[in-house]
Amino acid sequence: MGQEYMRLFFEPETVALIGASGNKLKPGYNLFYNLNYSFGENFYAIHPSQAEIEGKKCYKSILEVPGKIDLAIIFISAQLVPSALRQCAEKGIKAVIIESAGFSEVGEEGERLTQECLKIASETGIRLWGPNCMGLLNVSKMKIMSFMNPGMWKERLISGKVSLVVQSGMLSAGFLMHILTRTPFGLSKVCSIGNKIDIDETELLDYFITDPETEVIAMYLESIKQGRRFFELAKSTEKPIVILKGGRTEFGIQSAKSHTSALAQDDKVLDSAFRQAGVIRVLGMNELLDVARCLSVSPHKVLSKARIAVLTFSGGAGVVTSDDLYEQGMEIAKLKPETLDRLQKVFPEWMAPSNPVDLYPAMEKQGPLKAFGDALSAVLDDEGVDAVFLHIFAPPIEIPIYNFDAMGEMMKRHNKPIVSWVMGHGTTALKFTQELEKRGIAVVDEISKGVRILSALLMRK
Amino acid sequence: MGQEYMRLFFEPETVALIGASGNKLKPGYNLFYNLNYSFGENFYAIHPSQAEIEGKKCYKSILEVPGKIDLAIIFISAQLVPSALRQCAEKGIKAVIIESAGFSEVGEEGERLTQECLKIASETGIRLWGPNCMGLLNVSKMKIMSFMNPGMWKERLISGKVSLVVQSGMLSAGFLMHILTRTPFGLSKVCSIGNKIDIDETELLDYFITDPETEVIAMYLESIKQGRRFFELAKSTEKPIVILKGGRTEFGIQSAKSHTSALAQDDKVLDSAFRQAGVIRVLGMNELLDVARCLSVSPHKVLSKARIAVLTFSGGAGVVTSDDLYEQGMEIAKLKPETLDRLQKVFPEWMAPSNPVDLYPAMEKQGPLKAFGDALSAVLDDEGVDAVFLHIFAPPIEIPIYNFDAMGEMMKRHNKPIVSWVMGHGTTALKFTQELEKRGIAVVDEISKGVRILSALLMRK
Repeated sequence: MGQEYMRLFFEPETVALIGASGNKLKPGYNLFYNLNYSFGENFYAIHPSQAEIEGKKCYKSILEVPGKIDLAIIFISAQLVPSALRQCAEKGIKAVIIESAGFSEVGEEGERLTQECLKIASETGIRLWGPNCMGLLNVSKMKIMSFMNPGMWKERLISGKVSLVVQSGMLSAGFLMHILTRTPFGLSKVCSIGNKIDIDETELLDYFITDPETEVIAMYLESIKQGRRFFELAKSTEKPIVILKGGRTEFGIQSAKSHTSALAQDDKVLDSAFRQAGVIRVLGMNELLDVARCLSVSPHKVLSKARIAVLTFSGGAGVVTSDDLYEQGMEIAKLKPETLDRLQKVFPEWMAPSNPVDLYPAMEKQGPLKAFGDALSAVLDDEGVDAVFLHIFAPPIEIPIYNFDAMGEMMKRHNKPIVSWVMGHGTTALKFTQELEKRGIAVVDEISKGVRILSALLMRK
Repeated sequence: MGQEYMRLFFEPETVALIGASGNKLKPGYNLFYNLNYSFGENFYAIHPSQAEIEGKKCYKSILEVPGKIDLAIIFISAQLVPSALRQCAEKGIKAVIIESAGFSEVGEEGERLTQECLKIASETGIRLWGPNCMGLLNVSKMKIMSFMNPGMWKERLISGKVSLVVQSGMLSAGFLMHILTRTPFGLSKVCSIGNKIDIDETELLDYFITDPETEVIAMYLESIKQGRRFFELAKSTEKPIVILKGGRTEFGIQSAKSHTSALAQDDKVLDSAFRQAGVIRVLGMNELLDVARCLSVSPHKVLSKARIAVLTFSGGAGVVTSDDLYEQGMEIAKLKPETLDRLQKVFPEWMAPSNPVDLYPAMEKQGPLKAFGDALSAVLDDEGVDAVFLHIFAPPIEIPIYNFDAMGEMMKRHNKPIVSWVMGHGTTALKFTQELEKRGIAVVDEISKGVRILSALLMRK
């Protein structure tokens, strides 16, 4: 019941935009375009002087709009926001997203405006999203409630299981772009929450825990407002939660304050709370995306000590991987004699197989297709192996050296995660990455990242 | 004088190949092709039964070759190597690269073969390179003495200042491919040293320290054979040395042993020796390449406390960067009042500039070209700024939003390093990366990596 208003944000039937622009170079035009695309005739554009934009009628004020409005989006100068908010209240609107910047993050005058908005909201029962944010995207329903350039999301968004919460505007745009052009990454909802003066990460966490479309929750946060409740919620769910927390250090905290006016929190206390609640904490942006993506495509089982088989084209890369696995608390799986026998069949006589499985000489002898195929099948069959870290070499020429279909099928049949590191020729590597990820094998471009992902997949909580 | 033999490896005039193959699918053919390409009529192919390969005369044995041979490359089954080595000795050859595998790394029989080769070498004055390696490339002279597929290096190698030593075969190939397809990365020499039963990293370090073509030395090592001498040499040079050391942990050491028969060393002892000798230690493969590349393109000055200006399109990314800078012992530069005044001119009125410089609202107001250009100029002019970490957003559409020429010129004029993190649309990001790196601005794809690179650039020794 307390969450009923969330439907107004994520699935509004009627939407109004205060701050529509006809100037194609302005973000106010992007908002106009996106909302018109998403809601069509259930979208109302407000403009003080223009009668229409691209043939769409504009209303002078939100009070002129006929019928009920579920959600208003405000994108005008900060000083004008309180009076717009009052009009929303007068119109009976209960959900408002303020995407404008210029509030607490810019100092005293901004702080005064923030307090004024909060006062209006609490007196009139409005729930506020933002300000200083990029709004939200409901990818499952293709509702784009953001000033993001249409070129960034059009024909790129894929509906999927990951919901993303980002306490930053451009970062969520950057994230999204990065996701969308690198790999098919399925998203459910993307939320840019900015200064979160009212609706915060805890309410969103609560919503996503019960949202049947969300299976993995990924967050970039600069502060956590309702700490106790947040961690209780995190503990209560089986859904994986991955968090990148900015503002860990003195400098970071100062920067966060001027960015979204986030307040300092003791990072050590947070860190232990994250651990107790089973939250997967990451330290980089690519890593946040990689881990969330991998969790959304891989089977989730939790082990106390994961035993990994490493298939590699390079003994050196095998050594580096061994170091990283050990440091992350995992083990190099001890292969069974039957497995070693099967590997010996693709190895040259002079070489005894061991784990990491260095397949280069076997590739020379049998060709990579057979060497990798047989070896992968052998280690997946071994009950002493919980997951496989697969090193893939991308050659400069187009030759079918791996059978990606077979790899994907083997992984599904055995229900053991495979994470892959791809190195080699840039163009081929990108193609291989997409082929592998299409089949549920997550790809990374650095060994240590792949190992941290295996740890997140197998050993969380 | 003791290094005279090195010229036989890096700049041989005549080369013979024991193990030439006419089968295009075999690495023995690649070696034939590469040496023929590199040395033409000064290259002699040896084949026991074939009279010619692709019109090139083959000799039945190395003893039949007329004239003197500077360097022999052996690429036949391990069991046949000792007798081939004896023939090399008989022919008076002083430098031999064994690229075949099947030696100490595979157990007892291989160890016996190793000892036999070493005995022959010491009795006959031959210096050995390898075995179990990919040979070497002298990029400055375009001499490719490796079984690397020609598709991997042809029309891709760029002569430059970085020399790379890799104790692994495929890894050096993988490294190289990765370098060559991602970015124009200038290389001087690439050495794959394998089991290094004779010539090792210390001799190569000695050689590169005096080599006028080498300005940065990058190494992947699984062990260090002549530790004391190695660290003395490292201490003695101004040239930056970047090392990724595999075999840090129990597992890694085991894997290294079965890979290149490297012996265990106490990692803590090594780590302190690295630090004392001013070696830049890195923990990942991409990082090894990124740091070496950045050192080769950026001015090298060493500071006790580097003060960084961060230009970003995202406040959130600025927060994450602040954390990482602090943890790496650097400072967020305190900008001078004049600098802040200049920034205010591109900022909207409601926003006071600070460092990290969040340029998104300024981009909205002025366009990114002016916002980034003016801001970069302002922070570079500030004497309180030692280097700039530049966040670049890559949009999905082709618009000239940055003036890369101007950025490159400003960097050169101020002689302050700029490292850039690029995020956004994949295709555009790749293009921007290449444009920036062409102008000497190193690019990374993860903030933390960029910060570690700034630290390596500014604070080593």
